[in-house]
Amino acid sequence: MTTATALTGVIPPVCTPLTPDYRVDTGSLTRLVDHLLDGGVDALFLLGSTSEVAFLPDAHRKVVLDTVIRHVAGQVPVLAGAIDMTTLRVLDHVRVAVEAGVDGIVATAPFYARTHPAEIEVHFRTIADRAGVPVYAYDLPVSVHSKLGPALLLDLAAAGVLAGVKDSSGDESGLRGMILGRRDRTDIGSFSVLTGSELTVDSALWMGADGVVPGLGNVDPHGYARLFAAAATGEWETARAEQERLLHLFDLVTVGGTRMGISSSALGAFKAALYLRGVIDHPTTALPQIPLEGDEIARVGKYLAAAGLV
Amino acid sequence: MTTATALTGVIPPVCTPLTPDYRVDTGSLTRLVDHLLDGGVDALFLLGSTSEVAFLPDAHRKVVLDTVIRHVAGQVPVLAGAIDMTTLRVLDHVRVAVEAGVDGIVATAPFYARTHPAEIEVHFRTIADRAGVPVYAYDLPVSVHSKLGPALLLDLAAAGVLAGVKDSSGDESGLRGMILGRRDRTDIGSFSVLTGSELTVDSALWMGADGVVPGLGNVDPHGYARLFAAAATGEWETARAEQERLLHLFDLVTVGGTRMGISSSALGAFKAALYLRGVIDHPTTALPQIPLEGDEIARVGKYLAAAGLV
Amino acid sequence: MTTATALTGVIPPVCTPLTPDYRVDTGSLTRLVDHLLDGGVDALFLLGSTSEVAFLPDAHRKVVLDTVIRHVAGQVPVLAGAIDMTTLRVLDHVRVAVEAGVDGIVATAPFYARTHPAEIEVHFRTIADRAGVPVYAYDLPVSVHSKLGPALLLDLAAAGVLAGVKDSSGDESGLRGMILGRRDRTDIGSFSVLTGSELTVDSALWMGADGVVPGLGNVDPHGYARLFAAAATGEWETARAEQERLLHLFDLVTVGGTRMGISSSALGAFKAALYLRGVIDHPTTALPQIPLEGDEIARVGKYLAAAGLV
Amino acid sequence: MTTATALTGVIPPVCTPLTPDYRVDTGSLTRLVDHLLDGGVDALFLLGSTSEVAFLPDAHRKVVLDTVIRHVAGQVPVLAGAIDMTTLRVLDHVRVAVEAGVDGIVATAPFYARTHPAEIEVHFRTIADRAGVPVYAYDLPVSVHSKLGPALLLDLAAAGVLAGVKDSSGDESGLRGMILGRRDRTDIGSFSVLTGSELTVDSALWMGADGVVPGLGNVDPHGYARLFAAAATGEWETARAEQERLLHLFDLVTVGGTRMGISSSALGAFKAALYLRGVIDHPTTALPQIPLEGDEIARVGKYLAAAGLV
Repeated sequence: MTTATALTGVIPPVCTPLTPDYRVDTGSLTRLVDHLLDGGVDALFLLGSTSEVAFLPDAHRKVVLDTVIRHVAGQVPVLAGAIDMTTLRVLDHVRVAVEAGVDGIVATAPFYARTHPAEIEVHFRTIADRAGVPVYAYDLPVSVHSKLGPALLLDLAAAGVLAGVKDSSGDESGLRGMILGRRDRTDIGSFSVLTGSELTVDSALWMGADGVVPGLGNVDPHGYARLFAAAATGEWETARAEQERLLHLFDLVTVGGTRMGISSSALGAFKAALYLRGVIDHPTTALPQIPLEGDEIARVGKYLAAAGLV
Repeated sequence: MTTATALTGVIPPVCTPLTPDYRVDTGSLTRLVDHLLDGGVDALFLLGSTSEVAFLPDAHRKVVLDTVIRHVAGQVPVLAGAIDMTTLRVLDHVRVAVEAGVDGIVATAPFYARTHPAEIEVHFRTIADRAGVPVYAYDLPVSVHSKLGPALLLDLAAAGVLAGVKDSSGDESGLRGMILGRRDRTDIGSFSVLTGSELTVDSALWMGADGVVPGLGNVDPHGYARLFAAAATGEWETARAEQERLLHLFDLVTVGGTRMGISSSALGAFKAALYLRGVIDHPTTALPQIPLEGDEIARVGKYLAAAGLV
Repeated sequence: MTTATALTGVIPPVCTPLTPDYRVDTGSLTRLVDHLLDGGVDALFLLGSTSEVAFLPDAHRKVVLDTVIRHVAGQVPVLAGAIDMTTLRVLDHVRVAVEAGVDGIVATAPFYARTHPAEIEVHFRTIADRAGVPVYAYDLPVSVHSKLGPALLLDLAAAGVLAGVKDSSGDESGLRGMILGRRDRTDIGSFSVLTGSELTVDSALWMGADGVVPGLGNVDPHGYARLFAAAATGEWETARAEQERLLHLFDLVTVGGTRMGISSSALGAFKAALYLRGVIDHPTTALPQIPLEGDEIARVGKYLAAAGLV
Repeated sequence: MTTATALTGVIPPVCTPLTPDYRVDTGSLTRLVDHLLDGGVDALFLLGSTSEVAFLPDAHRKVVLDTVIRHVAGQVPVLAGAIDMTTLRVLDHVRVAVEAGVDGIVATAPFYARTHPAEIEVHFRTIADRAGVPVYAYDLPVSVHSKLGPALLLDLAAAGVLAGVKDSSGDESGLRGMILGRRDRTDIGSFSVLTGSELTVDSALWMGADGVVPGLGNVDPHGYARLFAAAATGEWETARAEQERLLHLFDLVTVGGTRMGISSSALGAFKAALYLRGVIDHPTTALPQIPLEGDEIARVGKYLAAAGLV
C-alpha cells in the first residue's frame, strides 16, 4: 500500500464513448475528458459502473486506461475500477491499471459468488497487498448484492488497507455513521469518504463527506464543481440551489421508460446528453443494452434546455 | 448456430483443483476427469459455478479448457461456461473456449448490470450468432439475480438460439412447466432440459428432464450414473434410493458452518471429499474463500464413510 | 397440545366466496364445501392465502369458520389459518377458531416485524402452548419474507409443538431434506409434511410427503383426489398424467396478465372458474384486488374446457 | 376526506409500555406522553412500528388510543397507525381510531399479499373515502416489501386522497425528488412530507421536509425538538451538532447484538432507556421478541450517560 493524500471534490465516473460497432471511440473519450477538466473536476474515475465497465471487454478497458492517462498527463489524479467477480480476477485488472499508470484502484466486494464478511475482508486485504497504489472500496449493493459494513470499512482504513470508499449504497444514515466513526476513531489516518448519490451531494458534504462521484457529472461537470465549491466555502444555499437544478436535470434518466433496464435508460440518457452537447460523436451504449430512440433522445434535449445546458 | 444432438444424462460441473498457491493443478484435474469418466458420466461441464469459474482468472480458465479437452480427446462431449457480466465479455470467453475445442457453451443472463428481459434476449441471440457451437442457457438466480422465464427460453429454443438450459433455479414448478411447454410446442426441435438441482434428480427425470448437472457428482459420479440409469430403465425405486443416499451425502456441505459463505462451504467440502478419496492432491479453494480446517475435513470423511465411499 | 393423527391426502385451502359488496357469500361457501367434499378431499383448510385470509376482516373470518364447521359437521377435519403479524395477534385468531370448533391451526412465522429464528421458535411454542389443538407451521416466504428452517421444524416436531407443516416455499430440496430428516430421527412421533406446491404433487408424494394443500383444488378437487389415490396405490404414471393435466389447467392464473398483482390474477381466476362451473354466485375478489374483466373470465372458461371441466 | 393543516415538526411514534404479562401499562404510557409533551413535540403518532403495533392485539390498540387521546386532550394532534394487511382490515382499525378521536390515520401499502401499484392506489383511495380524517401514507419497504412511488404519492396528494407521507424508506434521493415534485406541481394543496430517518433529520429538513417521526424521539424528545427548532430558525450548525449527538445515542440499538432480531434490539433498547430514565416501569417488549438482559440494559445506560441524559 502507498499512502494517499485524501481524495476530495468532484470525481466523475467517466462515460466510455463507443462507436456504432461497439469499439471505444477514443476521439470522443479525450473530448469528454477535456469537457470534464474544463468543468473543474478534481479527479477522474475510469471504468466505474457509469463507464459501462460491466459491458467492456478487457481490451476495451485497456484502451480506456491508456487513452485517458496519456491525455490527462498528470493534471488530476486518475482512479480506475478493477471490477470483477473475485480476488484473482480483480488482481488481473489491477495489474493492467497500475501498469497504465493509475493513481488508485476502486474495487467492489466479490459478486456472483455468495460471500461472507470474513471473505470480503480477505478480498480487500489481498488486493491492497498487491496493488502498490491506494485502494478504494466501492459499495454498490444494487449490483453486488452485499452491503459493506461501516465497521469493516473503518477497520480496513485503520489497517492501512483502504484509502477510501465510494458509497453508492444510498444508505445516508450508514454513510453518516461512517463519517462520524472516522472522526471518533484515533487510529485512522487518511480515509476519503465519497458519495455516489448524486442527488444528495450538498447534504453528504454537510455531513462531512469529502467528495462525490456523480454519474450525472459527465453531463454537467460545471454544475457539480459549483456545488462543491459553494459547499466548501459554506455557501450552503447556493449549493442547495445547484443540487436542485441538477436533480431536475437528472430526470432525463427516465426517458427510456419501462422498455429497457434502468441501467440502460440512465447510461443511454447520459450519453445522449453528451452527444447533444457535442461532446461525443455517438450515443451508442454497449450490448445488450436497448438503445434510446430518436424521440427519446429529443426528450433528453428538453431536460438539457430546462437546465440551461443548450 | 450448429445443430446439437440433445444432451442427456449426467453432466457434472467439473471442480477445478488448485495448488496451494492457487494455480490450476493439472495433474489432479486429469485424475478428476478420469474419476468422472470411470463413474460413467455422459459429458463434462467445465467452468461452471462448482468449478469456481467466478474465482478463476482468464489464464486459469484457459488451462482448464486445454487440459481437459486434450485429455478427454472426444470420449464425451465437453461444455464450458462462458461466465461473465455482459455480452461482449462473454464473447471473449466463447472465442477462447471454441478455439480450445468445446462442444457447447453455457452462459447466464447478464449480471452486475440490471437487465431487462428484452436485453437478456439480445444477449443470448448475440452469443448464439457468434459462437458457432450450441449454446445452453444457465439459469442461476442466486448468483445472477434474475430468473430466466420459461416462455423466453422456449421461444429462443424455437428460434434455434438455444440448444438447452441448465436450470439451477430450484423452481421445480417452472422446470416442469418448461418441460411440458417443450412437449406442447411443435416448433421446437432439439432442446435439452437439464436440472442443476442435485437432490431432486429422480423427480426431475420423472417430469421429463433430460439430464442433470450435479456438483455432488464430482464426489460420487458412480452414484449419479446409477441414478440416471435406473430412471432410464424405469426402475424408479432404485433411482429414489440412490437419490436419498446422495441427499444424505450432500450434507457434507454443512461442515463449514456459519464462519464462511455457503458457496465456500460447499465447494470446500466437495474438494475435501475428492482429496480424501485420493482423486486430487489439495483441497485448496480459490481466494477469497475461507478454507475448511482439519477437523472440518475430517467430518467430511464421516459423510463419505456413511455413504459407502471409503 | 393435543396428539394428532397424521393428516394426509388432499386438503384444499378453501376459497372465500364474496358478494359484490364484499360480504361473505355463505350460500356459495357451503356449495363450494359440498363441491370439495364431493370431489373426495380429505380435510379442509380455511382462511389460508388462497382463502384471501389477508383480505378478510375478523368478522368475515368468523363467518367463514362458523359456516363451514357447521356445514361439514365432522365429515372431515377442518383446519384454519390464524394468519397475523405476531404472536399475541395470532392467539386472538386461535381463540376464535378453537371456539368455532376447528381441528387444527395453521400459523406462519411472524411478518411485518423482522424476526430472528429464536423469536420464530418462541412464536410457535407460545401458540402451541395455548391452542389446545394441533398446530401446523405454514412456510410461505413469498408473503412472510422468512424461510422456516427444516432443522427448527423437526426440533419443534420432536418437542410436540408442531403437528405438521404446509410447505409453500417451493424449495423441493428443502422439502425432501425435511422428509428424510423426519424418517431418520427417532424422536419424532406424528408430523405431517404437506406440500403447497400444486404442480409437483406427484413428485412430492414420491419423496414421502403426506399430502397436498392445492389452491387449484378448489377448481378441480376430483383431479387432485384422483392424483393422490393413484400415488397411494403406486400407479405413478396415472398420477403423473393427472398432474400434467392439472398443470395445463393451472395456466388459467395468467389471464389477468400484468395489469394486476399475481395474487389477484390467481385468486381471481380460481373464483372465475368456480363461478363458470356454477359453484359460486360471484367471481368477486376482495379489495384492493383488481378484478378480472369479462373477456378474461371467458378465457378462464377455455382452460376449463381444455381440462374437460365443462 | 377532511382538509388538514400541514403537519410539521417532531412527531414521535410513541412506544407502547407493557406490563411483564404483556398488557398495556397505561400508567407508564401517560407518563411517556407527558415526557414527550414536556420535550416539546408537535404531535404524537400512536400505533406505529416503534409502538410495536405489529405485536399488539386489537384490544391493546384500543387501550392505547383511548388512554392517550383522553390524556392529551387536544394539546397536540394525535395520529394513529391503522396497520394491517389489506384494505378491509385497515378500515376496521380506522373506524376504531376515528371513534377514539384521532386527528389523522397512517396506513401502509398492503402487505403479505403481493400487490400491484394499481391496487395500492385503490387501497389508499378506499381508505381515504371512508376515514373522515386526513390519511397519511407510511412508506416502510423493510416491513411492507414494496416501495411507494413518489409519482403515485403526489398524484394522490393532488387528488386530495393523502394529507402527507411518513417516509421510512431510507431513500433520501427519492424523498428529495418528492419534495421538489411537490414544489413544482401547482395542483397540490397541503401535503406533509415527514421523514422517518431519524439520523438524517437536519439534512431532510434542509431539503424541505416538514417534520420527522423519530423512534429515538421517545428517548430524547428534547433533543429532536432542539434540532427542529434550530433548523426552523436557520441555525443549521446547531441542528447538525444535535443530530450528531443523537446519532451517537442511537447506537444503543446495537446492544442486543445478533442473538435477536434488529427490531427487537432497537425496540428493546428504546424501552430500556425509558425505563432507566424513570419514564416507564418495565422494559418489557411484546412476544415473541427476545428481551434484553441485565448487562445489555446496563450498556444502554452508558449510551444515555454519554449523551448527557442521566
